[in-house]
Amino acid sequence: MDVKAAVAFAPSQPLSIETVQLEGPKSGEVLVEIKATGVCHTDAYTLSGADPEGLFPAILGHEGAGVVMEVGDEVKSVKVGDRVIPLYTPECRQCEYCLSGKTNLCQAIRITQGKGLMPDGTSRFSLNGQMIHHYMGTSTFSNYIVLPEIAVAKIREDAPFDKVCLIGCGVTTGIGAVINTAKVEPGANVVVFGLGGVGLNVIQAAKMVGANMIIGVDLNSKKRELAEKFGMTHFVNPSEVEGDLVPYLVDLTKGGADYTFECIGNIKVMRQALECCHKGWGVSVIVGVAGAGQEISTRPFQLVTGRVWKGTAFGGAKGRTDVPKIVDWYMNGKINIDDLVNKIMPIEQVNEAFDLMHKGEVIRTVLTF
Amino acid sequence: MDVKAAVAFAPSQPLSIETVQLEGPKSGEVLVEIKATGVCHTDAYTLSGADPEGLFPAILGHEGAGVVMEVGDEVKSVKVGDRVIPLYTPECRQCEYCLSGKTNLCQAIRITQGKGLMPDGTSRFSLNGQMIHHYMGTSTFSNYIVLPEIAVAKIREDAPFDKVCLIGCGVTTGIGAVINTAKVEPGANVVVFGLGGVGLNVIQAAKMVGANMIIGVDLNSKKRELAEKFGMTHFVNPSEVEGDLVPYLVDLTKGGADYTFECIGNIKVMRQALECCHKGWGVSVIVGVAGAGQEISTRPFQLVTGRVWKGTAFGGAKGRTDVPKIVDWYMNGKINIDDLVNKIMPIEQVNEAFDLMHKGEVIRTVLTF
Repeated sequence: MDVKAAVAFAPSQPLSIETVQLEGPKSGEVLVEIKATGVCHTDAYTLSGADPEGLFPAILGHEGAGVVMEVGDEVKSVKVGDRVIPLYTPECRQCEYCLSGKTNLCQAIRITQGKGLMPDGTSRFSLNGQMIHHYMGTSTFSNYIVLPEIAVAKIREDAPFDKVCLIGCGVTTGIGAVINTAKVEPGANVVVFGLGGVGLNVIQAAKMVGANMIIGVDLNSKKRELAEKFGMTHFVNPSEVEGDLVPYLVDLTKGGADYTFECIGNIKVMRQALECCHKGWGVSVIVGVAGAGQEISTRPFQLVTGRVWKGTAFGGAKGRTDVPKIVDWYMNGKINIDDLVNKIMPIEQVNEAFDLMHKGEVIRTVLTF
Repeated sequence: MDVKAAVAFAPSQPLSIETVQLEGPKSGEVLVEIKATGVCHTDAYTLSGADPEGLFPAILGHEGAGVVMEVGDEVKSVKVGDRVIPLYTPECRQCEYCLSGKTNLCQAIRITQGKGLMPDGTSRFSLNGQMIHHYMGTSTFSNYIVLPEIAVAKIREDAPFDKVCLIGCGVTTGIGAVINTAKVEPGANVVVFGLGGVGLNVIQAAKMVGANMIIGVDLNSKKRELAEKFGMTHFVNPSEVEGDLVPYLVDLTKGGADYTFECIGNIKVMRQALECCHKGWGVSVIVGVAGAGQEISTRPFQLVTGRVWKGTAFGGAKGRTDVPKIVDWYMNGKINIDDLVNKIMPIEQVNEAFDLMHKGEVIRTVLTF
């Protein structure tokens, strides 16, 4: 079938709206009509060419929501008409990883997904006979996509696509980092580095679970107001701190933070996030994605004296299980997504959406079809 | 009173057996006659002068066992005649750290202990009027010492001093790293780097809790036999591995270790220990003490994909609570200490004991008075 998609033909070039050919679902797969998709920094990272695993040509996008239009043989968990969110981290519920109970990093289709292909080793996208790669197993910059059943989360029928699409990445990453990876408890003091889409979700999850101090750190003081709306109790702009940031934050938290979250992808900030943790028990979670080949470092004494360094991918969330719950939380007013979506525009304006993100003028732009 | 002690007058010089003056216990303190003490690498590290916090002159030693000879006012938890193990990590049960339930790093007397002094800010040791520093709050190279009540663990009356003294450091550090810090579960695969006194205790604790593979890594193949006696199931000598050690260990464990322990203090090995952990859930615990100012590093991707980097001090054990239990385990045959003690010699041979340790010919030498 013919579908409309924004195609990335080469690194650092604008996306091009094209009519692309899509093959239908095979056994265990579903066809999903994408209704809305967020534009995330990870898309920009791959488009920039800096991602060593980036493949071109490809259809980017990984933060979408849509409706099942067709199901292949053997598909049991969703049916035509179901609203779904595509999962770049699938949940097969059968692999060693899913069964471990310790991780969300389902490995069932990892190898082919990393190659920009479906589990059978083929791409379903082509343009005039030329193969186009899938991206992160999702490619939500296309108005129709094919996904394995294990990579779709069925959500409630009344969820608005142009908001809950963010649960496909940023919302779940931030909230999951707090509730799944760090397991922040009531009364804890939390420091969040970077007040973008992920950082704001860390903040609202910290508030939801009853954290005490929720300190936001960002070089852009314009982010203060929105972050306070999400639950931030203290704002720190490092450029306005006299002396080093780490002792400042240790003082502010009276001994160090119980939990810190790095939501930028800056290796120097990752170190600060660890070292401002409380001696004895502070946990620092790396949420941001650093540039290729970059390394974090610290003195081992930081760990020997009780700090813990960990990281999270998709917030440790098991997509088919956890994403529907987070959609419910949004629909029940428990979490705020509306204020994360600054602009809604048609897919034809995808390049404008990237520009807005690079300028830092929006938390998220959502594209519709 | 006059006591016999091995005094470190200056870095890198042999210890000198002296008759030292010791003031008796004040309120909340106890006088302990030390019956036996291990000689540990930490003593050697401070004696070498490499420890930036090392103070001289001092009476070293921190792995001892003895008998309470006198108690000051207000002492309630021990009485004259009780067998005890001195604790370099005290347990006041009242400070923020003790009450957190998250750490063993009691801070009640940390500042004075770090200065080589008793909690009231004085030293009780002197030689011909010259003050001599306490060391790690213990100074077990003296046949009598004064300790705050919170820094002694009361143990059973039939425990042999020349074995259970090792529970004052190496045994508890290794066992505690497994059961308190990593919380290794039955069936887990474990890699232990460094088969010295601490590493062997990691091994026997991993066996005790039902670990599956227990892989020991050491450049000295002579350590294999004893490690197997403690429960090691596989031995790896890195010098005999073709190619890189990390992928070798990942293959051996079929995907990576569930838990790894660095028991050397080598920052390169600390990185290997993290990176041979299983994606998704592997936990690496730093047990060894690195040189001053050295740093560990890795790519943050290692953490984002689910590995956890942590550390441990005194095995996360709360001394007054946990040390008596470990003594019971030894007395009940649940753990092996006898094979860790290669030599028992009088305190007068303390310098010989250091020589034996540096030559790597012993796990532990125990000194008696």
